[in-house]
Amino acid sequence: MDAEFVIIQRYFSAYQQRTGAAGDDAIVLGIGDDCALLRPPADELLAVSLDLLVAGTHFFADADPVGVGHKALAVNLSDLAAAGARPAWVTLGLTLPATLDESWVAGFCRGFFALAERHNVRLIGGDTTTGPLAIAVQAHGLVKPHQALRRSGASPGDSVFVTGTVGDAALGLRAIRHGPAVAKGVRDALRERLERPTPRVAQGLDLAGLASAAIDVSDGLTQDLGHILTASKVGARLWPDRLPRSAAAAAWPDQDQVLAAMLGGGDDYELCFTVAPARHAELLARAARWGCGYTKIGVIEAEPGLRGERTEDGSRVSYAMEQTGYEHFITTDSAS
Amino acid sequence: MDAEFVIIQRYFSAYQQRTGAAGDDAIVLGIGDDCALLRPPADELLAVSLDLLVAGTHFFADADPVGVGHKALAVNLSDLAAAGARPAWVTLGLTLPATLDESWVAGFCRGFFALAERHNVRLIGGDTTTGPLAIAVQAHGLVKPHQALRRSGASPGDSVFVTGTVGDAALGLRAIRHGPAVAKGVRDALRERLERPTPRVAQGLDLAGLASAAIDVSDGLTQDLGHILTASKVGARLWPDRLPRSAAAAAWPDQDQVLAAMLGGGDDYELCFTVAPARHAELLARAARWGCGYTKIGVIEAEPGLRGERTEDGSRVSYAMEQTGYEHFITTDSAS
Repeated sequence: MDAEFVIIQRYFSAYQQRTGAAGDDAIVLGIGDDCALLRPPADELLAVSLDLLVAGTHFFADADPVGVGHKALAVNLSDLAAAGARPAWVTLGLTLPATLDESWVAGFCRGFFALAERHNVRLIGGDTTTGPLAIAVQAHGLVKPHQALRRSGASPGDSVFVTGTVGDAALGLRAIRHGPAVAKGVRDALRERLERPTPRVAQGLDLAGLASAAIDVSDGLTQDLGHILTASKVGARLWPDRLPRSAAAAAWPDQDQVLAAMLGGGDDYELCFTVAPARHAELLARAARWGCGYTKIGVIEAEPGLRGERTEDGSRVSYAMEQTGYEHFITTDSAS
Repeated sequence: MDAEFVIIQRYFSAYQQRTGAAGDDAIVLGIGDDCALLRPPADELLAVSLDLLVAGTHFFADADPVGVGHKALAVNLSDLAAAGARPAWVTLGLTLPATLDESWVAGFCRGFFALAERHNVRLIGGDTTTGPLAIAVQAHGLVKPHQALRRSGASPGDSVFVTGTVGDAALGLRAIRHGPAVAKGVRDALRERLERPTPRVAQGLDLAGLASAAIDVSDGLTQDLGHILTASKVGARLWPDRLPRSAAAAAWPDQDQVLAAMLGGGDDYELCFTVAPARHAELLARAARWGCGYTKIGVIEAEPGLRGERTEDGSRVSYAMEQTGYEHFITTDSAS
């Protein structure tokens, strides 16, 4: 396919020239053959994660291509962060409608490679084809065998934390789709969280070998925490009134909607993680350099299930919580 | 997304239980966490290839899901074969319209995992989402550093070979789309080549360390051979009248169409490769066990470009050949 080679050569190769990444020595053969050939370091594990982004499901078909390029890579780097892995290489599968022009591809590449450069990630291969707009990215990271973060290591007594703030992306989506009317600054801030999520790569690296379990918040806090609980065969008590809310979320007119977004909204790409009490001081020391901050939101318990706890008339009241998840913005017919 | 987890758990996990693959020791963590964790052998290179299959572009939306599952994996194993790599692990990204029922997923899994079992390939992770039907597969293979096949190693004097027969898949597509009327047996045989291609994995392994260059025929013989010529900075003389044609192709009423399909038709997933004269005997010995056979179709020359050579009035006539490629069956609007 001529169009394919034109796109690859004009944009991807041009960007590759400029990106001198740390993992370059391990790339024996990059873009342009049937396979890329890698020599991963013998003393590290290879962490791999494949994510799909589909127009109409994960982003609006008319979204700014720079943001789409950013997000396509960001969600994958977020998976590496949740494993405590250092980003190294990425493959990209791009399905483009024939109606899209080259300026879309140029914008996509700008967003994608700006983030790639920031994290020293090298594009090693991929595929482009014609069809409904969609992106597939596989990220490859490296992590020391005993430092890899998993969902399965949480123990009763561990504290539950989350980085940054949650619920913003879901509020951003709501602001775009059906209001309510909010100040432009608030709307822009929330939309930025939805369309240009920040993968917590540095935080994941700091948590490697320290956190007992971790996951990234892509489907919603309660659902994603639920995955940790299931994998670790434990339960948790969560404090909804202590969930970290952004200034933009605090300015949202309906705070019930904010709470629902913080608990069930996805696409924030914060890290939810657990740390044993004996290592809290170490967390404090490492997290001192995190610009995004972090918040203790609950505690792991032996009893399975997720329980909420809130203050009512001055005393703490416990209640069962649903682990419902975020459905992105899937339409019930086919995505449009 | 609940639907996602239901699908993953019901089908993929069930199949995983049954597939005890050779590379299992290297899988530190498989499906079900943010990342899969692998420990690739230190003495081998990791070969990776990402391929997209989109309904309306690479297969008909109403195609048998068993065939779609087979082909989605086959085209990736073909890339590994072209690199001389042993298949090991695979990730799968599945975008499914909400209108598709579970029987489609069941059929897809049947085709996908039957081929995976045949080649000892293990599914280690992936993603499922809602949207226009499409599949992304990344295959991971292993190859000794000095045995990896590339496009860039062909030298003047090397012979050009191709496995099996070419043109069948393109004829199969033509038979489905606009005839001509051919016997059912012929039509079925050609369609089988289109919908259930056989990746030449064993052949690729035999060629590793032996062939000077290799590629799989996915975009069309002249175009794919052209990639070898460009990467190797050489040219070639091709003998179109010696191209291997299947019994089904020989039964096709218009042999001009057959020749065009053999030269320009894609989707055959045969291997096109070059071997130095000094190693022809070794090729003969290794290829003795190949059920698919192989054919010498030309020779590498120092002069750039692709030249055809045919017999006319008893003497050989040379002519410049176009390296046109196969466009799958892309529609000019968006795929439907």
